Amino acid sequence: GPTEEYENLRRRIYSNTKELYYYVEHELGKFMQEENKEERLQVILDQVSDRKRSLLSDQQRLQEVDGYHEWRIAEAANVSDLIQRRLKHLQNPPDCKEARKVICNLNKGCGFGCQLHHIVYCLIFAYASERTLILNSKGWRYNNKGWEYVFHPISDTCVSAFDDKAVQWPVTYDAKVISLPFIDSMAQRPKFLPLAIPKDLAHRIVRFNGDPASWWIGQMLKYILKPKTAMQKAINDTIAKMNFKTPIVGVHIRRTDKVGTEAAFHHIQEYMAHVKDYYDQLDMSRSTDAVRRVYLATDDANVLEDARAKYPDYTFLGDASIAKTAATHRRYTPLSLTGLLVDLHMLSMCDYLVCTFSSQVGRVAYEMMQANRVDASDSFFSLDDIYYFGGQNAHDRVAVMDNAGTNQDVVFLVGDMIGIAGNHWNGYGRGTNKRTNVNGLIPWYKTADHLVLYPFPEYKHVPLYEPRQKDL
Amino acid sequence: GPTEEYENLRRRIYSNTKELYYYVEHELGKFMQEENKEERLQVILDQVSDRKRSLLSDQQRLQEVDGYHEWRIAEAANVSDLIQRRLKHLQNPPDCKEARKVICNLNKGCGFGCQLHHIVYCLIFAYASERTLILNSKGWRYNNKGWEYVFHPISDTCVSAFDDKAVQWPVTYDAKVISLPFIDSMAQRPKFLPLAIPKDLAHRIVRFNGDPASWWIGQMLKYILKPKTAMQKAINDTIAKMNFKTPIVGVHIRRTDKVGTEAAFHHIQEYMAHVKDYYDQLDMSRSTDAVRRVYLATDDANVLEDARAKYPDYTFLGDASIAKTAATHRRYTPLSLTGLLVDLHMLSMCDYLVCTFSSQVGRVAYEMMQANRVDASDSFFSLDDIYYFGGQNAHDRVAVMDNAGTNQDVVFLVGDMIGIAGNHWNGYGRGTNKRTNVNGLIPWYKTADHLVLYPFPEYKHVPLYEPRQKDL
Ligand SMILES: Nc1nc2c(ncn2[C@@H]2O[C@H](COP(=O)(O)OP(=O)(O)O)[C@@H](O)[C@H]2O)c(=O)[nH]1
Ligand SMILES: Nc1nc2c(ncn2[C@@H]2O[C@H](COP(=O)(O)OP(=O)(O)O)[C@@H](O)[C@H]2O)c(=O)[nH]1
Repeated sequence: GPTEEYENLRRRIYSNTKELYYYVEHELGKFMQEENKEERLQVILDQVSDRKRSLLSDQQRLQEVDGYHEWRIAEAANVSDLIQRRLKHLQNPPDCKEARKVICNLNKGCGFGCQLHHIVYCLIFAYASERTLILNSKGWRYNNKGWEYVFHPISDTCVSAFDDKAVQWPVTYDAKVISLPFIDSMAQRPKFLPLAIPKDLAHRIVRFNGDPASWWIGQMLKYILKPKTAMQKAINDTIAKMNFKTPIVGVHIRRTDKVGTEAAFHHIQEYMAHVKDYYDQLDMSRSTDAVRRVYLATDDANVLEDARAKYPDYTFLGDASIAKTAATHRRYTPLSLTGLLVDLHMLSMCDYLVCTFSSQVGRVAYEMMQANRVDASDSFFSLDDIYYFGGQNAHDRVAVMDNAGTNQDVVFLVGDMIGIAGNHWNGYGRGTNKRTNVNGLIPWYKTADHLVLYPFPEYKHVPLYEPRQKDL
Repeated sequence: GPTEEYENLRRRIYSNTKELYYYVEHELGKFMQEENKEERLQVILDQVSDRKRSLLSDQQRLQEVDGYHEWRIAEAANVSDLIQRRLKHLQNPPDCKEARKVICNLNKGCGFGCQLHHIVYCLIFAYASERTLILNSKGWRYNNKGWEYVFHPISDTCVSAFDDKAVQWPVTYDAKVISLPFIDSMAQRPKFLPLAIPKDLAHRIVRFNGDPASWWIGQMLKYILKPKTAMQKAINDTIAKMNFKTPIVGVHIRRTDKVGTEAAFHHIQEYMAHVKDYYDQLDMSRSTDAVRRVYLATDDANVLEDARAKYPDYTFLGDASIAKTAATHRRYTPLSLTGLLVDLHMLSMCDYLVCTFSSQVGRVAYEMMQANRVDASDSFFSLDDIYYFGGQNAHDRVAVMDNAGTNQDVVFLVGDMIGIAGNHWNGYGRGTNKRTNVNGLIPWYKTADHLVLYPFPEYKHVPLYEPRQKDL
């Protein structure tokens, strides 16, 4: 049976949802009679915030005491382990010369996050087509000695296509060696591209993770991103100098070349509002208020100083010298890469992440969070985009309730597929009903994420569990 | 592990709690700029209602799929069965003549609900003191032939104190036969009076029921209230004539002598607003809207007609001739009692109950609901009082969060006991901090019901489970 704590919490959440509503109903009902409306609005908003935080705090606790906590930890470890073993198997074929291969060139003229995602896409292609991935990284802009100089190679035993001629996708699918274009310019786009996840694992993943697509990407990163000893030492040394302790919120502020071109400028206040909200909610479940720590990563060296000056109540961790190496003119250097790896590692270790998902650095940090815990899907706030994978296939939400469309919102029926442009974080998103082709506002709560399941190969020869592990 | 549906629902509730907040935050943030404020308020309120209903509907479903549904059903049946067997044992002592007894007189000059609660109080006293309860009902106002003419006697084998002299409580606790005063005028009030529950069962009850105190009262009623064949037939015949089907909401409208003396008048609209809310929420989890059925019980024969005229979209079940016999001048008759038993039975079979807990009829209906299902604690709305037992000991709530007391609300710290006067259904209740003795508004969500556990006898000689049943 359930524990007393679980039952009490469950009922408390139900009751407090009603209480929140009673409050709003009552206050709005008498609002027109208020003398000082402006002031009253602030009181209402503060009350609603507090009641919401209490509800969310209880809900977070609920999942810890619902009796499935240990199971989720074990299952996440098991599925992750299975994927890693499958990748290892794929990347180390018994006969490398005979193995079918896919070739991926690291020469994409973009930042490290973007390049990582390029490799992820190649590795997914490899996994889907049961081909060994060969990574070409000569003349790599972050280190012209190549990827293998910084990271462990993505194969221990099979790193070249020998003399076999590579045929560019999509000329033929059958060639022994295929060379891949950039995902953005891909023709004949396979259905297995993100955000698709493997059908054989999907029903296991959804039982412990709230965002299986990014978890799956995270698993690819986990396989790819393994710093070599020298790099790992450089990272560890820098980290050792910081007083990294939980609770801590990671903030990624992407400025310089990104602002005005691919993303809008966001003021430090916008980030810190969410940091504050995180700590306010956390305080609900702790007896004493703790130090409010923030790990701040940025490519703009002025931000850290600015933040410390503006928010004396917060303790900022971060290294201005790292930010300096991220300046556009010093960016593509080994030193800058080390700094970025420190930042990514630290961000991914934080309890909560505030960032802009328009930045690949922000998305990589989240994907790495997904890979280093059971479920990070509620542990971030993106000031702009919802999560996506650059060059992904259509991302839909499915209607789970009818919507009459009384205001500017789109009419839809249960089951309608809605192509999603983004969430406005005001209770609505923007999207297109694919049945009616009407675009407009979407009441987000009436929709659910539509997961795309693709029948990836099932690697039956790789055992489901390592001999020492057991099914729970 | 958890089911996919449970995990999805759990995450959905978390996400939609945030979505509700985003909506309110956004709307209130721009409210002062609105042209037509009045109209806008209505839009906001409608949106918030709908989002709340969706949240509550998902939460109701959550408890059905959290993996503990079957367990709760079995456990509730087991604990109920144990209490009934203990009562049966207590009421049928091996040697009636020698048995210690407590005498209860049904001559309380009040209505049937009030009298039932009087017997409940006596039975709890009996259970607490391991005395057999003797019910004296000669000249009973509803049927002067006595209780046993209508109901099965509360003992099959032991119905008199023989020649033993009864000593009135609280003269002595040790006398062989004790006679009880009315609870309202009781001196030396024992700690086991409602809302106390037995310590040995408390931790079992809280794991399936959200309101253990009323569940415990319901168990007493279940033992007491067993109509004899003739009465049962009369009830069944009346019920057979009605087209009773679920979903159905029970509404109890207490008027006549109650209004203006012990309770305020409540218009039919106030009841129906909650009926509507119930059905609106139910529609969230059903594909097609169903007939909106209401069982209406009242002591005012005009109400039924009025309701049917005002709410043509609802189907009202109910019998105006029953209401007529409930008129004050015809109330204390066998016919009126039959009608009331029909009403109580029907109300207690409904999916949801809207009533005024200032009326003992309303509270009895709820207690009977508690006895006929696993958990009815979220299946009612009282327009006035929160649940209580007339003459109960102090009912406190305990602070689970600190409250700074910024407005008219009372300052309290985690752990403070708060004596509760009522809930205003606007997000606040009224109460007194027992540590500081300050009375005022209490943000309800920062408090939890304080259960009083009393070490009732444990009846070790009554087996915990009937031989055929098993522990789950
Ligand atoms: N060290 C460090 N470098 C950053 C940070 N933000 C951006 N950069 C640098 O800027 C590059 C941005 O390119 P990319 O990874 O494609 O991400 P995007 O341009 O933000 O989408 C990164 O790869 C880094 O080299 C940061 O917070 N810390
Ligand atoms: N049949 C019927 N009788 C009612 C109803 N409401 C009140 N009565 C009568 O009025 C009496 C009210 O007295 P009581 O049970 O003490 O409840 P209270 O006065 O409402 O707290 C009941 O016992 C009934 O005899 C009703 O809905 N149906």
